[in-house]
Amino acid sequence: MKNADYLIGVDLGGTAIKYGICNSDGTILKEFISDTKRDAPIDSMLRKIRESINDALRYANQEKIDILAIGLGTPGLVDINTGYLMGNAPNLKYWRSVPVRERLQSELTIPVFVDNDANAMAYGEFSFGAGKDLEDLICITLGTGIGGGIIIKGEMFRGSKYAGAELGHMSIHYNGKKCRCGGIGCWELYASATAMIENYLAKNPKVKSISPQEIFEQCKDGNEIAVQVVLDEVELTGAGLASLVNIFNPQRIIIGGGLSEAGQWFIDQIAEAVERRAVKDSFRSVEIVAAQLGNKAGWLGAAALAHQYYLFP
Amino acid sequence: MKNADYLIGVDLGGTAIKYGICNSDGTILKEFISDTKRDAPIDSMLRKIRESINDALRYANQEKIDILAIGLGTPGLVDINTGYLMGNAPNLKYWRSVPVRERLQSELTIPVFVDNDANAMAYGEFSFGAGKDLEDLICITLGTGIGGGIIIKGEMFRGSKYAGAELGHMSIHYNGKKCRCGGIGCWELYASATAMIENYLAKNPKVKSISPQEIFEQCKDGNEIAVQVVLDEVELTGAGLASLVNIFNPQRIIIGGGLSEAGQWFIDQIAEAVERRAVKDSFRSVEIVAAQLGNKAGWLGAAALAHQYYLFP
Repeated sequence: MKNADYLIGVDLGGTAIKYGICNSDGTILKEFISDTKRDAPIDSMLRKIRESINDALRYANQEKIDILAIGLGTPGLVDINTGYLMGNAPNLKYWRSVPVRERLQSELTIPVFVDNDANAMAYGEFSFGAGKDLEDLICITLGTGIGGGIIIKGEMFRGSKYAGAELGHMSIHYNGKKCRCGGIGCWELYASATAMIENYLAKNPKVKSISPQEIFEQCKDGNEIAVQVVLDEVELTGAGLASLVNIFNPQRIIIGGGLSEAGQWFIDQIAEAVERRAVKDSFRSVEIVAAQLGNKAGWLGAAALAHQYYLFP
Repeated sequence: MKNADYLIGVDLGGTAIKYGICNSDGTILKEFISDTKRDAPIDSMLRKIRESINDALRYANQEKIDILAIGLGTPGLVDINTGYLMGNAPNLKYWRSVPVRERLQSELTIPVFVDNDANAMAYGEFSFGAGKDLEDLICITLGTGIGGGIIIKGEMFRGSKYAGAELGHMSIHYNGKKCRCGGIGCWELYASATAMIENYLAKNPKVKSISPQEIFEQCKDGNEIAVQVVLDEVELTGAGLASLVNIFNPQRIIIGGGLSEAGQWFIDQIAEAVERRAVKDSFRSVEIVAAQLGNKAGWLGAAALAHQYYLFP
């Protein structure tokens, strides 16, 4: 009856809510997307999430599918026992200190589970994607910031109070750039897609805006500035990953987020940079690969986490 | 019958082997120390270790004590399943690629367990010292290098192939000093006792050699150079620990090694530096304390690990 374990997953982002219905082996039944706003007040954000869940429930009802559990991934640190968003969410203006699960559960009978969005993405890749055959993984997303998720012995690692795995805020320069988190030299200030764009614009002040895709295209065409910016990105990503290799000695590192779509060459270059920088014994058996689930990883992972939580509350 | 679970622990270092007999609650029955040499060939090093174990066994025999298991902590990464020293040991010249357990076990009937020395130290503090009431800990030793041990949910975390927890080789400067490990900007190049001494000698070229203890004494007396060197040490230690807080969100960080004996003021200063740099939610509940077992932590921890391994092989 495994295929009867239907789940709803929801991935809350700054511009969109991605959600869908899948079963416990990751088969997608239906996918949805709706828009949201970074500066939506808490009540309006919760309403949007609830509407998304209702869309999915309506579909399930039509199709006569029973939903076991609902999972939500949200930016920000989440106390998974209570589903409480502890601090603020970097890209959502008013989304802070929200009892997310309590607010959603009050109108739903199906159990709701809430976790950090990077954890959900990592758990999605672990359950159904680039890490599904393994149990010790590090997942990072190179996007607006750098998100991170850690799987140890087949379990999501969150830290003692669910406030760990902030991999984007590992410092790669003790005396470097100041971060909005209060930290100094945070990795995401150097190696996120945002940082790559800033690096390009600083090197080429005539250009006022550019996308990572355009930078990679110019790089392929041999544009010197773009080549240098991509090589910087490789080196700075590799610097952070080498530390994670030395600390975790994982079986595999999975790279997701917008930049991971630049292709195998980019991933291979990063792997070489990590190999150069990491402790040899720590690196020896580590594989570095691209994520497989693209922007579905978040909602699929939220669904998989909800399933785990349903089975082992 | 808990007190009848007697164990031998051995801590191999560059200048001394510390060893002893304890029981499973950490009560010390007898302690020993013997000297060793950094440049001892493998066979002579193994002979020294075996002599140490024989000392302890002779004592146990006299006292009519049955030894359950023998634990050894050695510098370098160890495959704990086989007790094989994988790479080299930073401070021991010829001590590399040694089947340590196999060589020791071949002449002993009591089970032998071998692990990395920083893991043993961390497990000692976790079992009997500054972390004994908790289950999520990071231990670091500020000494010749920086050693690290990680306890997650009451278990030693070593990485998928036992080659993780190389905390001293986490980079705190992506473009910084080159390390003998091949890495760049490794934490121990900036914040170990060795680095602190180098910093002092660079700032005060008239002095040819100095100990950390002397630097701390000069600091107390208000010597400007010494004060600056200690503040640098605080900041650089804090930089690395802040990353570890953001990654692990542990319950407690335990600081051991020579520098940890500088007193509570030094520990408090480090805690303040970590608080300034870490993600607020990740730091909120973290305690930063000095180690409690001093230079007994290594052999006591090796004994405790051997006991665990004996009970759950």
